[in-house]
This record gives sequence, C-alpha cells and structure tokens, in this order.
Amino acid sequence: MTIKRPYNFAPGPAALPEPVLEKASQEMLSWRGSGMSVMEMTHRGPLFADIHDRAIADLKSLLGLGSDHEVLFMQGGATAQNAIVPMNLLAQNVKADYVHTGHWSAKSIAEAKKYGDVHVVASAEAEQSDAASFGYVPPVEQWQPRADAAYLHICGNETIGGVEYHQWPDMNSLGLGSLPLVVDMSSHILSRPMNFDSLALAYGGAQKNIGPSGLTFVILKRSLIEEHAPKALPICPSVFDYRKVLENNSLLNTPSTFAIYIAGLVFEWLKDQGGVEAMGQVNATKAGLVYDLIDQSSFYSSRVRKANRSFMNIPFFLPDDRLYEPFLKGAQAEGLLNLKGHKAVGGLRASLYNAMPLEGVEALVAYMRRFEKEQG
Amino acid sequence: MTIKRPYNFAPGPAALPEPVLEKASQEMLSWRGSGMSVMEMTHRGPLFADIHDRAIADLKSLLGLGSDHEVLFMQGGATAQNAIVPMNLLAQNVKADYVHTGHWSAKSIAEAKKYGDVHVVASAEAEQSDAASFGYVPPVEQWQPRADAAYLHICGNETIGGVEYHQWPDMNSLGLGSLPLVVDMSSHILSRPMNFDSLALAYGGAQKNIGPSGLTFVILKRSLIEEHAPKALPICPSVFDYRKVLENNSLLNTPSTFAIYIAGLVFEWLKDQGGVEAMGQVNATKAGLVYDLIDQSSFYSSRVRKANRSFMNIPFFLPDDRLYEPFLKGAQAEGLLNLKGHKAVGGLRASLYNAMPLEGVEALVAYMRRFEKEQG
Repeated sequence: MTIKRPYNFAPGPAALPEPVLEKASQEMLSWRGSGMSVMEMTHRGPLFADIHDRAIADLKSLLGLGSDHEVLFMQGGATAQNAIVPMNLLAQNVKADYVHTGHWSAKSIAEAKKYGDVHVVASAEAEQSDAASFGYVPPVEQWQPRADAAYLHICGNETIGGVEYHQWPDMNSLGLGSLPLVVDMSSHILSRPMNFDSLALAYGGAQKNIGPSGLTFVILKRSLIEEHAPKALPICPSVFDYRKVLENNSLLNTPSTFAIYIAGLVFEWLKDQGGVEAMGQVNATKAGLVYDLIDQSSFYSSRVRKANRSFMNIPFFLPDDRLYEPFLKGAQAEGLLNLKGHKAVGGLRASLYNAMPLEGVEALVAYMRRFEKEQG
Repeated sequence: MTIKRPYNFAPGPAALPEPVLEKASQEMLSWRGSGMSVMEMTHRGPLFADIHDRAIADLKSLLGLGSDHEVLFMQGGATAQNAIVPMNLLAQNVKADYVHTGHWSAKSIAEAKKYGDVHVVASAEAEQSDAASFGYVPPVEQWQPRADAAYLHICGNETIGGVEYHQWPDMNSLGLGSLPLVVDMSSHILSRPMNFDSLALAYGGAQKNIGPSGLTFVILKRSLIEEHAPKALPICPSVFDYRKVLENNSLLNTPSTFAIYIAGLVFEWLKDQGGVEAMGQVNATKAGLVYDLIDQSSFYSSRVRKANRSFMNIPFFLPDDRLYEPFLKGAQAEGLLNLKGHKAVGGLRASLYNAMPLEGVEALVAYMRRFEKEQG
C-alpha cells in the first residue's frame, strides 16, 4: 500500500508512526487471529489483559522507571488532571505551589484554586511585555515555594509558548528535597531521556507523543499516595482517585482500550527506534535545524530564550503580518500541514513530536529558506 | 478479505458491525484521501469538525431528538458520570432521588452520596432472597420520590442483572411532571425507539451499542441546565461542567477523536439498517429466541420478571453448577464467546447488542438446545 501522506506539524492530536497505523489497519478485524478487533474485546479478558499489561511494562521500561513508580491509564486528558491532581493531593494539606510559564500553567493554576490554597512561586509573566507570549522559565534560584506545601507543580513543556524545562529544577538546591514535584508532561514525555527519580507525579494526554486522544497517562511514586497523601478529597470522583485506580491496575472502570492498544504499538515502535536515547538525539537534530535557521535569519524570529526553547513545539514569527497567509498556503501546497500558531500567541508553530521524521523537518526548513528568499 | 470472526456475546466493550471495522481499516492511513489517519487530525481543524458535527447530527437524528435536546461527547464512562451528574445538578438543591434496581444503580447511589442528600425512592433489593440478583423494576406506583428533589435517577438497563425499563416511568402519574428524570442509558441506547421528550438527561459509556470505550455520551435538555441547574458545584472540574462542554460543542479540551469517528461510522451503519425502528424489531426477535427457549425449558432458567427482562443482556442459569464449565467450553469451541455471567450474579449471560446479528443468536440457541439434550 502506498499512500502519499503529508507532513503533519499539528500540536496534538498529531502524526503517528506509519508502521503503527499499518499494523492497526491490518489487525482491525482480527487481532492476532482472534477474530476480534481490539475494540471488541472485553477489558476483563485475557486478550486485553495482555495488551494492557504489555503497554504498561513497555512504558515503564522506555522511561527507565524504578520499582517505586507506577503507571496509570486514565481518561479526561491533562485538563481533567488539572482538577484531579489537587483533588488527590490536598486532603491533608491544602497548600499547592505552582510555577507560571504560560498558557497551560495558567490553566492548571486556575483549576487548582477550586480545591486549595494556591501560591504562584514564580511567574514569567511580569517581565514580558506581550502577556500572551511567555518566553522563559524563571530561574530556580528565584522561586519561592513553601516548604510545607503539598506539592510543587510545573508544566514541563508549554506546547503553545514553546518553553521547555531541559532539566528538572533541583529541589535540593532550594532546600526542598522532600517537596513532591508534579509535572504536566503532555507534550514532551518520551522525547528524550528524563530522570524520573526526583518526580513524584507526571501526567499528560496521550495525543502528542504516545497515541490517540482519549487516553491519559499518570506516572506516580507509590510513596506519594502512601505517605504524603494517603487519601483523596472526599469530593474526588472514585474513578479519578489515584489510589483506587492503582489498586485496580487501571481497570476500575472500562478504560480506553483501543487507545491503550495504539499506545502499546507506539511503545514497540519506540523500542525498535532505539528508545528515548535515540529519540532524544533525533529530536535535538530536528529542533536544531529549525532553530539554526531562525537564528541565522533576520526574517524569522523566536521569542523564547535559547536555554528554554522547546524541542517539541517551535513557535516562530515573520517580519510582517501580511506574510502569514502566503506562508501557510505555500506550505500546505507542499504537504506541510498545520503550521499555524495558537491563537493565544499568533504566528507560526512547528510541532516536531517523535513521529515527525527528520525528512519532514528538512522539507520544512527547505521551504522556509525558499519562502525567505522569495519574500524577504 | 475473509476472516472467520466468532460471535462475541461480551457485555461491553462488545462486538462492532463488520462494515464499520472494514471502513476503519481502509481509512486508517488516509481518511478520504487526506493522507492522515483520523487519529492524527487536530481536533480544531475542518476535517475533524466535519466528522464530529456529523456524528452528533446523526445521533440526534437516530434518536429523534427535538431541538431542546443536546448531545455532548465526554470522557470517563458512566462511572465518571455517577459523580458528574450530581456535581452538575446539586448546586442549588442538594436533594437527589434514586431508584435501586441492581449493581449499576447501587454504584450510582453510592457515588451521589458524596455530593448531596440522596434518597432511595424504591428498591428491588428487599424482596429478593439473593441480594446480588435483582430481578425486577419496583412498580412506579410504589415509588416515593420527593417533589422538591433536584432530579430522579434510574438505570434504564441493568447490564449485569438483565433488568430493563421497557418504558419510562410516567412522572405525571406520580404528580411529578416537573421532576427531571435522569437515565443511565449505557447498555440500551439506540436499541429501539425511545421517547426522549420526558427525559432531562441520559448518559452512558459508548462501548456497548455505540462504539469503542473511552467515549461517553450525554444527552440533555437545555432547560435542565438553563433553568433547573444553571450552575455546577464549585468543586466540579471545568472539563466535566455540562455548561462549559455545551458552550464549546464538546471541544473544551481534546475529545476522544478516534472513538467519535468510529461512533459516527456506527451511526451511519444504523441508518443503513433502518434506524432504531428496525433495530428494535430485530432486537425483539433476537431476545425472544433466547427467552422463549428458556421459558420452554426446565433446564435453563431466568431470574427476571417477564415484564422487566432486558433485550440487551440476558442472564440465565443451569440446573447444576457443575455444568457451567462444559457449557462455556462447548460454546467457545463453536465460536460463541464471552457467555460467562458477571461474578456478582454468576451463571451465564448473553449480551445481544445491535451489532450481534440474528445468525449469532440462532447459533447460540441451537447450541443451547443441543447442550440441553446432551446434559439435561
């Protein structure tokens, strides 16, 4: 089967690896000779149990998780987790600290305020003239978290602003080694090796680097819910209580079975590619191609400080607002899709998740050079 | 492509129509020449908007909804709705009334107690010796709902007990015409014509009669949230606030895009079959075949009163516990799968959702006759 597929730079749901789609297509009417689609399998039966357990084991192995970290599959996306995190962690201690680095941090902060005493320990907003466009991570030395907070929340990668933590804040350097660190990891999980040892909880929607939308991953330390927060708030829906989901191996209710299956195929593909080490190298190369062009050009511009530039989502701008429409039209004509920036920041954005091949980025960069020559 | 597919009597996730799976397989790498899988489409773009809007319009049309009823697509399944319903409807009036007809009612009742003053207006439990096996719907004349409750909740079809409301309780006959009626419709939506005029809200997981798991449907009257309950409880997560989901046409956050696409294919298939009128006839025939055999036999037995027997889920029993294993083994050998009853009631259960063809039920009945002859 040869189908011409364009390069899809969408921020999520986003491109998936072609071999994953091919396998899903082949197995749609009969998974491994079972005569059943994965969608038709009861979630309590041995066939699905195999798919489910393997997906969790592969994700743990890809991320290099230790035995104290658990993987949960839930529903509702990161937006639901913005409520589910505080509902789970604020029963005994209502203090929640947040770092504000842009659009998604702001959403997490606003939602958490429903459930506790929220303190913004640092914000990139004040020093920025354009409030919609947060361009950096405030230096950790300037953070002022409360030592007695239930947790400290950061957004690991701001998908809209294109701001990424390339390493986790060193909580020990703040004298806060025991303050649980919670990370919204929606848009950069599995994009490179990451150290999970210092993370109490990481969550996100699957629809960027993992698979289809409708699936949420939660990675948490057992000690977080056993020692720090043994109970959820009484108003936490049972189905969103981490302790109950964990006890039931994410089968408390019917999970997103097909999405878990696709996620499992993506994990297998990632292993074939060489895991997160290999992806980290390819992703650095891909992002480097675009950032180098931007930095060498006086036509294209980035608003993000170099040290905090995202390798997954690259927002960039043209010198004249009238050029956006022809840029997008020309890109579309060459099979380079979904390059429009989010309405909150405008401009353009290229999302370069794991499934975006190097050739796609080379095609984008070639187009950008040509467009600059024609219009610059 | 000819694949031998068994007959899958699972309670959900359950069998899907083969033409739906075939189409999904064909379109997996390129939806209608777009070069993209539906899973790869941004949920804010025109391609997915078309799929999404058509699925909602087709569901409205299949159900014959009036202009005052809206369809929402959410996540978390009926189990999440057990919390989401009271979180949405109890802000101004904490009284919630429930009818208890079995396993799923019990779950709804237990969850609602977290959010309000819950009153069980009628229960099938007391008169039943076997507490796990509720066998009927308490007569409406015996219900004692509170006229000033925020809503009255029923489970339209108890998937485990096999107890179904074949018509909605006549609230006017109780002098309670303005009490909003809320129905858990997970396991019998679209199974036959239903009158939605008297329903304020219906919800359920998609994984029985609609499509893959990971998708929740909510059907509600605008007047319910505009007049009766204009605000949600302050602790209701934004993403589960019906008003916000409705304002955003179910695109408040990234929805289960692929599951919505499959649901849309199922709706198209249903229209091709003649809609809910035709399904209602086929489903009555299918269920009749099994119930007739049970009633004519002294070998098989049903524990559900005739007037309340479910057309979707038929639990039945053998005269000797030692016969279950050979029954299930023999069935499996003939490609009749997932006939084991739920552990809460034991025995056997045949789920006959829309996608189960008449031939599958004929094969089941033939096997049942043969098994009775051999073992009876």
